[in-house]
Amino acid sequence: MNANLKYAIIGSGAVGSYYGGKLAQSGGCDVHFLMRSDLDFVQKLGLTIRSKDGEVHLPRVNAARTTEEIGPCDVVLIALKTTANAVLPNLIPPLLKPDTLLITLQNGLGNEEFLAQHFGAERVLGGLCFVCLNRVGHGVIEHYGHGTLSIGEFGRPPQERTRRIVSDFQRSGIEASAVENLIIERWRKLVWNIPFNGLGIAARATVADVLQSDELHLSAKNLMRETIEAAGALGHAIPMDFIEFQIARSWPMGPYRSSSQIDFEAGREVEVEAIWGEPYRHAVRAGANAPRLELLYALIKRLAAMRCEAL
Amino acid sequence: MNANLKYAIIGSGAVGSYYGGKLAQSGGCDVHFLMRSDLDFVQKLGLTIRSKDGEVHLPRVNAARTTEEIGPCDVVLIALKTTANAVLPNLIPPLLKPDTLLITLQNGLGNEEFLAQHFGAERVLGGLCFVCLNRVGHGVIEHYGHGTLSIGEFGRPPQERTRRIVSDFQRSGIEASAVENLIIERWRKLVWNIPFNGLGIAARATVADVLQSDELHLSAKNLMRETIEAAGALGHAIPMDFIEFQIARSWPMGPYRSSSQIDFEAGREVEVEAIWGEPYRHAVRAGANAPRLELLYALIKRLAAMRCEAL
Repeated sequence: MNANLKYAIIGSGAVGSYYGGKLAQSGGCDVHFLMRSDLDFVQKLGLTIRSKDGEVHLPRVNAARTTEEIGPCDVVLIALKTTANAVLPNLIPPLLKPDTLLITLQNGLGNEEFLAQHFGAERVLGGLCFVCLNRVGHGVIEHYGHGTLSIGEFGRPPQERTRRIVSDFQRSGIEASAVENLIIERWRKLVWNIPFNGLGIAARATVADVLQSDELHLSAKNLMRETIEAAGALGHAIPMDFIEFQIARSWPMGPYRSSSQIDFEAGREVEVEAIWGEPYRHAVRAGANAPRLELLYALIKRLAAMRCEAL
Repeated sequence: MNANLKYAIIGSGAVGSYYGGKLAQSGGCDVHFLMRSDLDFVQKLGLTIRSKDGEVHLPRVNAARTTEEIGPCDVVLIALKTTANAVLPNLIPPLLKPDTLLITLQNGLGNEEFLAQHFGAERVLGGLCFVCLNRVGHGVIEHYGHGTLSIGEFGRPPQERTRRIVSDFQRSGIEASAVENLIIERWRKLVWNIPFNGLGIAARATVADVLQSDELHLSAKNLMRETIEAAGALGHAIPMDFIEFQIARSWPMGPYRSSSQIDFEAGREVEVEAIWGEPYRHAVRAGANAPRLELLYALIKRLAAMRCEAL
C-alpha cells in the first residue's frame, strides 16, 4: 500500500458521504466518491456536513459516475443500502487490485458473507457506524450526534491493515477503533437497530416517541433482550446491562428518525432482511426465543412490501 | 316479563343494526333502536341487511333519538363501541325496570364489569357475536358471513331469562345459544380478535392478507397461543386445537377487514383497551408469557393515538 491510501466510497447516502467526507477533509488520504443523482450537484457545489459542532464544507471532492473512472483503490467503503447489494458484483471489479480491501458499512447481517462469496473472504472487513445522520439534500448531510466507527475483519482478528485504516479515520476526527470480533459487534448494533428502526416503522415513532411511551419503551427493551439472547445462543455473549447502556445513549437523540424509518416514510426500499429477517432466522436456527422479533419482522416485511407496491 | 319482550338496541353500528334488525324482522318481539346520525334515514328508508343469502329490508323500524322516548324495556342490547362506555350511565336509566336485563354485545374485556358497577351485577349478561359485518351506509349493513351469538350471564350460569332471549334470537334465524361460562367465551373470542383485529391495524392486513403471508400467519397463530395461555393462567381452559379451528373458519372470510381496522383506517377511535390492553394486563397479572401481545398492544395504542391526533 502507498503512503496515502486511496479510498472509493460506494453509496453516497448519509453514511458514505459523512465518513468519506471526513476522510477527504483530513487530507491524509485520496478519497473518491461514486455518485449518481448527486454527481452534478457535488461537482458544482461540493459536499456539506452540518453538525451541532459546526458546518464542514468541502468545495471540491473527487466524484465520479462509474467505478471505471475511479480505478483501482486500496480500500472500498461500501455504504449502499443492502437492498441494492445485487449491483456490487458489477460495480466493484474496476476498483480491485490484488490487495484491495472491501469494508461494508452496511446494516445488519449477511453483507460480509455476500462480499466474501463474490470477491474472496480475505479482503472483506466490516465497519459498524453508530451515528445519527440524515441526508437532507444533494450533497448535504445533517449530523445529529454520535459517530463512532468500529472496524473488524471477516472471520479473523484485526490485522495491521485494519489498524492503518482506523488511523486514517481517527486522523479525520472520527472516534474509530479496531474490533476483535466483528460479528459480535454486528449483533451489538442490532440490539439498537432492531427495536428503534423497527418501531420507527411499525409505530411511526421517533426515538423519543419510543422512549416516552411506557408500552413502546418496554417492548424496545424486550426486543433488545431477545436480540442479546439470540446472539448468546449463537455464541456471541453480550451482557444484559448493554440494554440500559443503549437506552441511555438513545435519550439524547430526541426526535431522531432512523434511516429505515425515513426510507419507509419516503416510500423507498427498507432493509427488511438485513436488519430483521436474517437476525430472526439466526435466532430460530440457534433455538433462541424471539417472539417479538418474529412479530416485528412479519409487520415490517408486510408494511415495506405494501409501501413499494403503492409507488 | 310479558309474552313479547321489549328490546332496546343501544348503538346502531353494524352489530346493533344486524342483531336488532333480525329480531325486528322475526316479529316475535318489540324492538326499538336508539339512533343519532342514522335516525332520519332509517325513519324514512328503514333498515337494510344485505347478505349473500339475500337482502332483508325493514321498511318501518322503531327508531328514537333518546332513551326517554323508548322508555322501560325488558332487555337492553348494548352495541356501542367500548370507547363510548362513559355515556352509558346517563343513557341507560330511562330504559330500566327492576328486572330489565342489560346484554353487552361489545368487544373484549371489562364491559360486564362496567355495567355491573353502575347498574348491579344481577341484571348483566354478555353476548359474543362471531359475525362478519360492516355498516356500509346509513341504515345499511353488509353481512359477509357467520353470525352466531352466544349469550351468558355475568358470574353465573344461564337462567331461564337467558334461554328466553336465546329463543327470540333463534326464532329470528340467528344461530344463538346460551353459554355456561361467559368469561371463557370472551377469551375464546379474543383468540380471534387479538390477532386479526390487531394485525389488521398494525399490518394494514385483511384476514386473507394475514393468512397468506407466512410470517403474519405464524404470528397470528402465536398470538392465539398466547391468548389461550393467558386464559389458561386465569383458570379458563381453552384447548390448543382451537387455534386450527379459528384459522379454518377464517379462510372463508377472504379480504374481510375487522371493524377495528375499518375504524382505524377511517380515523375513528379504536377499542384499544378492551381488545388488547385489558387482556394484556390480565395475562401479566396471571403470570402468563405474552410477548407478542405486549408488542401488539404497544403498537396499536400508539397508532390509534396518532390517528386521533391527526384528525
